[in-house]
Formats: sequence, structure tokens, C-alpha cells
Amino acid sequence: MTTSRLEAFSDGVFSIAITLLILEVKIPKHEDLLHSGGLYNYLTSIWPSYLAYAISFLVIGIYWSNHHWLYSFIKKTDHVFNLLNILFLMTVSFMPFTTAILGDFISDPLYRNASVTAYCIGYVLPPATVIIMVLYAGHHNRLMDPLLSRSFKNRFIVKLIFGMLLMGSAIALSFNYPMISMFIIGFSLIMFLLPPTKPIYNLPKQSSESGN
Amino acid sequence: MTTSRLEAFSDGVFSIAITLLILEVKIPKHEDLLHSGGLYNYLTSIWPSYLAYAISFLVIGIYWSNHHWLYSFIKKTDHVFNLLNILFLMTVSFMPFTTAILGDFISDPLYRNASVTAYCIGYVLPPATVIIMVLYAGHHNRLMDPLLSRSFKNRFIVKLIFGMLLMGSAIALSFNYPMISMFIIGFSLIMFLLPPTKPIYNLPKQSSESGN
Amino acid sequence: MTTSRLEAFSDGVFSIAITLLILEVKIPKHEDLLHSGGLYNYLTSIWPSYLAYAISFLVIGIYWSNHHWLYSFIKKTDHVFNLLNILFLMTVSFMPFTTAILGDFISDPLYRNASVTAYCIGYVLPPATVIIMVLYAGHHNRLMDPLLSRSFKNRFIVKLIFGMLLMGSAIALSFNYPMISMFIIGFSLIMFLLPPTKPIYNLPKQSSESGN
Amino acid sequence: MTTSRLEAFSDGVFSIAITLLILEVKIPKHEDLLHSGGLYNYLTSIWPSYLAYAISFLVIGIYWSNHHWLYSFIKKTDHVFNLLNILFLMTVSFMPFTTAILGDFISDPLYRNASVTAYCIGYVLPPATVIIMVLYAGHHNRLMDPLLSRSFKNRFIVKLIFGMLLMGSAIALSFNYPMISMFIIGFSLIMFLLPPTKPIYNLPKQSSESGN
Repeated sequence: MTTSRLEAFSDGVFSIAITLLILEVKIPKHEDLLHSGGLYNYLTSIWPSYLAYAISFLVIGIYWSNHHWLYSFIKKTDHVFNLLNILFLMTVSFMPFTTAILGDFISDPLYRNASVTAYCIGYVLPPATVIIMVLYAGHHNRLMDPLLSRSFKNRFIVKLIFGMLLMGSAIALSFNYPMISMFIIGFSLIMFLLPPTKPIYNLPKQSSESGN
Repeated sequence: MTTSRLEAFSDGVFSIAITLLILEVKIPKHEDLLHSGGLYNYLTSIWPSYLAYAISFLVIGIYWSNHHWLYSFIKKTDHVFNLLNILFLMTVSFMPFTTAILGDFISDPLYRNASVTAYCIGYVLPPATVIIMVLYAGHHNRLMDPLLSRSFKNRFIVKLIFGMLLMGSAIALSFNYPMISMFIIGFSLIMFLLPPTKPIYNLPKQSSESGN
Repeated sequence: MTTSRLEAFSDGVFSIAITLLILEVKIPKHEDLLHSGGLYNYLTSIWPSYLAYAISFLVIGIYWSNHHWLYSFIKKTDHVFNLLNILFLMTVSFMPFTTAILGDFISDPLYRNASVTAYCIGYVLPPATVIIMVLYAGHHNRLMDPLLSRSFKNRFIVKLIFGMLLMGSAIALSFNYPMISMFIIGFSLIMFLLPPTKPIYNLPKQSSESGN
Repeated sequence: MTTSRLEAFSDGVFSIAITLLILEVKIPKHEDLLHSGGLYNYLTSIWPSYLAYAISFLVIGIYWSNHHWLYSFIKKTDHVFNLLNILFLMTVSFMPFTTAILGDFISDPLYRNASVTAYCIGYVLPPATVIIMVLYAGHHNRLMDPLLSRSFKNRFIVKLIFGMLLMGSAIALSFNYPMISMFIIGFSLIMFLLPPTKPIYNLPKQSSESGN
């Protein structure tokens, strides 16, 4: 079973989840404007919602891009992997919810910590699922290109685990120091923005060519 | 008329319906947080919404997967089958509604029974439509691969009818014992998670090959 | 310029508009349930919303199907036709709004007439746009297959105009007799459910073959 | 790396953003109808929402069309350009928000100026991002067809910068003269509706052929 349908379906979910983010930036009612002192004031006061929108848009965009990169060396799929992919999409589609929580409550000192905790958890779920997917697909080269070099695979898993530890600490810190957690998210976002490393294949080199 | 456009359109509807589920997990307002005692409390108190989201995401994901499986042995379509497929999509798109009902009211003893009844009905509508589709497509091999073995078709229909009976009893029980109904849903979900059986073709065996 | 991208984009809009319909079936709040006497009562009392959902789902599904049929004999496109197609999609995407109006207010005698008027107008806009598209594409065979028979084209336009007159009368009647308008909608829906007529081509017959 | 996946993903985002616009046309509640004097009155009183819907639908439709035109001479992509494209989609998906602001508040003299400012900013963000994309892709023909004529590229950038200046003045004027800003938007929309100029290629002429 090839992965093309799986990728097309995933692309659909990615593009919808990313576009739904805007629905979480709230349109004011007339009453809201009385409280906030006019529409100009309202529109500037909700800057955390814009920021949350921009961050999550970037995050889902990067997850989309990395998902494609993942499928450049996972060439086939089976029933279990299909289900794992659905689990992964479930975590991606969850992001509009945690994004809305972050945008609505980060500027309120009472709820800041909880909003950052929620966002960090939502942020870490997709890569956590990717670890399971990679371990499953890579086990005895079940679904991966058998010519993929062992060192490339190992480095990839080490990176994922390092990311988990980083985000785990962001979750732990968010209960008391939410701004440090946001800083960690910003840092990991910059790491994500770097171009993904090229898959390394063992000889015969040709398979890498035909693999694309 | 081939089924490729029908499948692409259906994939679009599946991916949207599955992603819309998150819109039914409610973002709290400031007033809600006063009642629930803070954002941490709120976020943990709505666990039935997370559960309903996860179950329905899985269910729609499985329906998507089974829909593709169905079209692996239904190779052509006609006007009536197109309409039946639209009817099927209508029942799939209905799930975000019953999911929201379940998530919002299952934790409230006053409304638990009704919320489970609604969810069970929403859950059973897509497979009920599939029975009609299969009977129509299979009648004198109207749209099915004529080499598909009779025993495979019969077993498929028996399974669908057994599923209907199971879910019918879940609906009936939900009026008084909603938790038993939820247990039946969980059980049927596990059955659904098993890999679908491979279509069995009569000789000549080659057609099975070219059929993929 | 071929129509494939236009069709793919249109398919996307169709599949989203059809799936968004469910967002217009309202999830009750706890207060709503106090008024309506429990969740069972609420869920049965909103049957007009289910009906509006089902009708509009069918209508958009049929518009999707007819759109594909249209593009079976409109083989190329130009800038103006692209814009007309966007205009057409604008009218299709409008249907979730008029559907919600119908579902929410048809059971209220005070607002029934207005809700039916709104729905009739939303219902007639897509075919009205199709007339413009067909006249533009058919003018001196600008974008249509030149072998398409003149009698087929004429019959198609006569049908569209007849449909317009029918729906125009439904709009006019809705101000006083909304139920007659709903009956006309039901009738036209049944007409729509009939299989579309096959395009008729002049000799040489082969072009019809290669045209698919 | 070819642009086909990027274009498919972008098409998905375009089709969702354009269809989400309808969710911003508000369904009335029963209380709203008491204030506005019936459903007929309500439905006519929200004409600014219809207008905002129509304008934004057209705008996103044109951005979609121009996006495809852009990719007719940008034939490959790299990691940075992928990120720029995500940035571009972020600005397109933002439009349902500013559209809702415009539709809800342009008819209220108190908030008219702010609503038009918001809309103008939302309107100018996508083309502003396109400038960055074009500069990046065109730098030493990094991603553009090397045979694309220099004069065509220069004229394109001049047009984009002229459009920026026009829209910049629309933003500046909106603080005091919002109706002049709306007039500028209308004017630029008409300019947008004109067919895009054909890319001009240097000799050898054949590459233009194979480029399509």
C-alpha cells in the first residue's frame, strides 16, 4: 500500500486546521467595544490573539512541511501506520483549541500560567506522536527505505527525544514561569525553521535518486 | 464513469468533517472561568469534550479508511450511486453535531441519556447508509468487480447487519443505561480498528492484481 | 488554459461549503434546555434544522455533480470565465447562511415567510450564475466543444430559464405562501435528482469519445 | 524541489479561507429580530456584511488566480521559499477576520474608520508578502525561469510597489476619510480583475512553450 492517499488526506487536514486558526481570533460585539474604548483600542488590545495565530500558523505549516519530509523516506504504509497517522492528525487538529486558549488568556495574569501550559501540551503532542510513528516504521525497516543509513535514523530519533525533553521542561516550567516556557517555544520554533537534514542513504547511491 | 472524482470529493468532506470536530470543544469565556474556579480547573473539567473529540476523530478516520477499502472493489459508479455517496457523506458530516452534544452533556446526569442516544444515532447512520450502497452496487454485480467472490460479499453484508443490530441495541439501551451503550461503542470501535479483510476474488487470479 | 485547476479549486469549495452546513445546527446551552424541557425535547424540536441541513446538503451535492457535468463539455477556460466561476462559487458558499436562516426560523410563524424568501433566493443564485457562464462559454463556441449539437445547447438553456421562472415564482409566493414555495423547492429538487442528460455531439462521433 | 505540493496545499488553504467567509455573516438570534423589527428588516439591514462577503470572496479568488499565475514562472522552490509561501497563506487566511470587522462595523459611524483601517491592512498584507517572495525568487534567478525577460520582471515589481503605495495611502486616509479608502479598494479591485499580463521570455522561444 503506497502512502499517496494518506498524504493527500493529511494535506487536507493540515490545510483546514491551519485555516481554522483565524476563527479563534474573536470578532467583537458592540458591548465588547464599550468596555475596550472603541474599535481601534479593541483591535490593538487583542494582539496576543494575533501572535498566537501567527505562531500556530507557522507551527502547523512546519509540521506540514516535516510530514512531507518524513514521507520522503517512508515509502509504504500498513493498517497500524494508517491509524498512527490518524492519531498524528488528531493532535494537529487540536492546535486551534490550545491556540485560542493562549490568545485569549495569556494577557490575563490570573490565567496566564494555565494558558501557557495548555499551549505547550498542544505543541508537544504532534512530535510525540511522530516518535511513535518513526519507531514503528523503522523497526526492522518495516516501512522505511532499507537503504536509509542507520546513523541518519539514529540522529533523527535523538533529535526527537531531545525535543521532547525540551518541551517537557517547558510544560513543567509553565506552572510557575510561563514566560520562560514561551521563550523555549520560540527557540524550538527557530530550530524548526532551519531546513530539515537530507536523508542519507547507504550505497547503492542510485536508490536515493529513484526514491524521489 | 470511474469513481476517482467521487473519492476525491469524499476525501475532502472527510478531512473537513474530521477537522471541524475541534470547533466543538468550547473556548471558555471569562465568566465560565469564575464558575469553574480558574483555567486549570476548566481545562480538566471538560475532559468529556476531549474524549468525545478523540472518539469521533478515530471514528471518522476509520470511516475514511473503510470508504477507500470499499472503493477498492467498487470500480465504477452511476447517478444513483453518486447520490447514495452524497447521502453517506451527509451522515459523516453530521458527526461533529452529535459529538458536541455528547461532549457537552454526558457529564450531566440530567442529560446523559439523551446525549448518548444522540451520539449512538449519529454513529450508526454512516454504516447504515453503507448497507444501502453495498446492496445497490452488489445487485447483479452492477458496480462491483464481477470476479469478487460471493462468499466475501455475503460475509461483508452479514458483518454490516450484525453491526446494525449491535448499534440498534446500543440506541435502545441508551434511554436507560447510557454507560452500557458507551461500552458497546467502545467495543465496536475496537472491532473497527482491526484491519479490514482482504477482498477475495475468484479465478482468474490476475484480475485481483490489476484491480489494485 | 485547461479547466483542471479550476475544477480542483471548485471541488474544494464545494466540499467545504457542504460540510460547514453542520455548524449551523445549533448546539444547545444549558439555558436552552431549561426552556425546551430537556435534551430529548430540544433534539426533536430542532427538526427543521435537520431538514434544512439535509435539503441543503443534497442541493450542494447536486450542484457539485452538475458542475462536473458542465465541465464535461466546457473544455477550456479564460480569464473572464475564471471570474464567472468564482462568482458561481460565491453563490454556492452563501448557502450555509440561508440554510441556517431557514432552519432557525421556519417553525416560527412570525418569521416563516422571510426565512423561506431568504432560502429561495440563496437557492436560485447558483443556477442563475450558471446561465451567465453557459451563455458566455457558448457564445460562438468560445469555450465549448464545437461539436456539441446546437439542439443540446438550446434545450439546456431553455431548461435553465424554465428553472429560473419556477424559482422566481417561488420567491414571489414566499412573501405570502411560504409553504407553496417550499413545495416548489421540493419539486425542483426531485427534478435535479434525475440523471443529467448526456451531451449530444455532431459527427464525427469519435470526438465525443476522446472528449471524456 | 518542484512546486506542485506547495501549490496543492496553497489551493486547499485558499478554498477554505474563501468558504469560511460566510461564517462571518451573522445568523440572528430571536432577540436580534426584536430590535431590528422582523427578519425581513434584519436581512436587509446587514447588507454591509453581504458586501464585505462579496468583496472578500472576489479578493481571495483573485489572489488564488494570481498565485497560480506566479507559479507559472516560478518553477522550483526551496526551504526559505516554502516558509515565505506559508507566510503568504497566513495573510490570506487572515482576511475572514478583517472582513467580519468591516461587515459588522462599517455602517456604525462610531467604528467606521477603524473597521476600514482594519480591512485595508488585511487587504494589503498578501501582496506585501508577494513582493518579498518575488524579490527572493528573482534574486539572480534563484527560483525563476532564467529565460524570463528582465523587463517583464521589472514591470511586475514596479506594479507591486505602485500597488503598495496606493494601499498605503488607503490605510493613511482611512483614519479620517474611510469612504475614500473604500473607493481606492474598489479601484484596485477593478485593476485586479483585468487579466494578468503574460510572462515574456527571451529567446530561445521554445522554453516558454515547455515552461507551460
